[in-house]
Amino acid sequence: MISRAAKITIIGLGLLGGSYAKGFFNAGYRVTGIDIDPGTIEYAKKMHWISEGGSDPELVRDSDIVISALYPVTFVEWIRQNQHLLKPGSILTDVTGIKRKVIDEINEILDPQIEFIACHPMAGREFKGITYADCNQFETSNFIIVPTEKNTERAINTAYDIARVLKFRTVSELNPEDHDRIIGFVSQLCHVIALSLMSMSDDPKLVDYTGDSFRDLTRIANINEDLWPELFICNKDNLMQEIDDLIVQMTRMRDLIDEENVEEMKKIMIEATTRRKKFGKR
Amino acid sequence: MISRAAKITIIGLGLLGGSYAKGFFNAGYRVTGIDIDPGTIEYAKKMHWISEGGSDPELVRDSDIVISALYPVTFVEWIRQNQHLLKPGSILTDVTGIKRKVIDEINEILDPQIEFIACHPMAGREFKGITYADCNQFETSNFIIVPTEKNTERAINTAYDIARVLKFRTVSELNPEDHDRIIGFVSQLCHVIALSLMSMSDDPKLVDYTGDSFRDLTRIANINEDLWPELFICNKDNLMQEIDDLIVQMTRMRDLIDEENVEEMKKIMIEATTRRKKFGKR
Repeated sequence: MISRAAKITIIGLGLLGGSYAKGFFNAGYRVTGIDIDPGTIEYAKKMHWISEGGSDPELVRDSDIVISALYPVTFVEWIRQNQHLLKPGSILTDVTGIKRKVIDEINEILDPQIEFIACHPMAGREFKGITYADCNQFETSNFIIVPTEKNTERAINTAYDIARVLKFRTVSELNPEDHDRIIGFVSQLCHVIALSLMSMSDDPKLVDYTGDSFRDLTRIANINEDLWPELFICNKDNLMQEIDDLIVQMTRMRDLIDEENVEEMKKIMIEATTRRKKFGKR
Repeated sequence: MISRAAKITIIGLGLLGGSYAKGFFNAGYRVTGIDIDPGTIEYAKKMHWISEGGSDPELVRDSDIVISALYPVTFVEWIRQNQHLLKPGSILTDVTGIKRKVIDEINEILDPQIEFIACHPMAGREFKGITYADCNQFETSNFIIVPTEKNTERAINTAYDIARVLKFRTVSELNPEDHDRIIGFVSQLCHVIALSLMSMSDDPKLVDYTGDSFRDLTRIANINEDLWPELFICNKDNLMQEIDDLIVQMTRMRDLIDEENVEEMKKIMIEATTRRKKFGKR
């Protein structure tokens, strides 16, 4: 387990960084927070989630575990500028939603005395900012560790420890390629669908004619426009393939409807219902 | 308001018919229930939602208001066989999710002494059967009345009264063409998406790698395979058009990702976020 004496620093106290700080605080750890927004630091201090914090990168000095909750490109840039402040032997991790590009770029520039272990807590939400921070959602969320052959047991175990401290439901390991492929499907494609649905109509009366289906499918259309174009572009090969695959499936359904092929539609529905049961009621 | 002395008969006590029976019972009305399944009738009686019931169509005699909660094709067939049992001057309504075809067929065969007013309570769920009946959900659901020029004030008012007794959140009127076009978008297209997503992968490990997005977008993939092919086919012109329109939007997103056009993606995201806010948090 992570020693209570460890210095843990979180860089970027947005929705996820703030939730991490709260989770570590609740588990009895002292957290240092770094954020460029003074209001965010003030809020985190007032809530006692961080014991010290500010915008100065120097605050990261002597940290045993450094967690970046920055957007992917900003994260790489931060390391480029501030990695001389990181303690030899310390462990660096992240929360970004795409992995190949982040891992490649970090491994290329990072001082070999620091070890980077990539993590993806699947607990993003359709809001941004520390005021929405909430570590309770971790208990129903998945945590994915994305090691490479460069990672040591020690760093991988630290990633498991972080997931355990924050009480994530399930912890899995995926290699960077599988991670980005799967995320292109279960997360990014879903966001493209929600955005496309919202682009289809601006009828203001629509809200009076909708059931839960449309509300469910478009919840994530409430999206952080500063983060998501970056995530889409960093994973464009996978995401474009997933969009193509979905169009194939939708065209197949379209053809079955056109042919009034009830039997084949039933088969698809029974299969979908069976598969969906694994994911629980919601 | 509907007189407490009125005889109200519900035909088909599934998820929606059962919820209607419960809602009318809670509001102090006596309900007669007709269902081919003896277990369903027994359950509804045990819960006191119906005061009399059985499988015999004769039970509909002397009803002032007859509510069909049958599937569209079955509903038309029931009327064809049993409309001689309906009382002159009585009002007939339904809960089906598509309207042009149902209205046309019913109006063609229905005795002019009976008036049919089409209604669509948008409170379907991903479960079927009376054991999932729940009238509380009506308070957060929309109710659409679909009158034609043949309808009288009296019948339209009765539809409003039903929505009021059952405590629906919003009641709107749409003509049959607009209803089917909008439903093709907000409901049927969403179901085609959910089914297509579930067709894309049968990786049993997927459940450990998903966040809320995928769970939200596929909740309705848990679908009643006896009902939905019929709904899709009855509205195929609209639904096929909506599938085509979605493919256009997704292809546009795909192109923007391919071009790494961050500015245009941001515009779409900001627009989507603004539009989505009207639909509330969920």
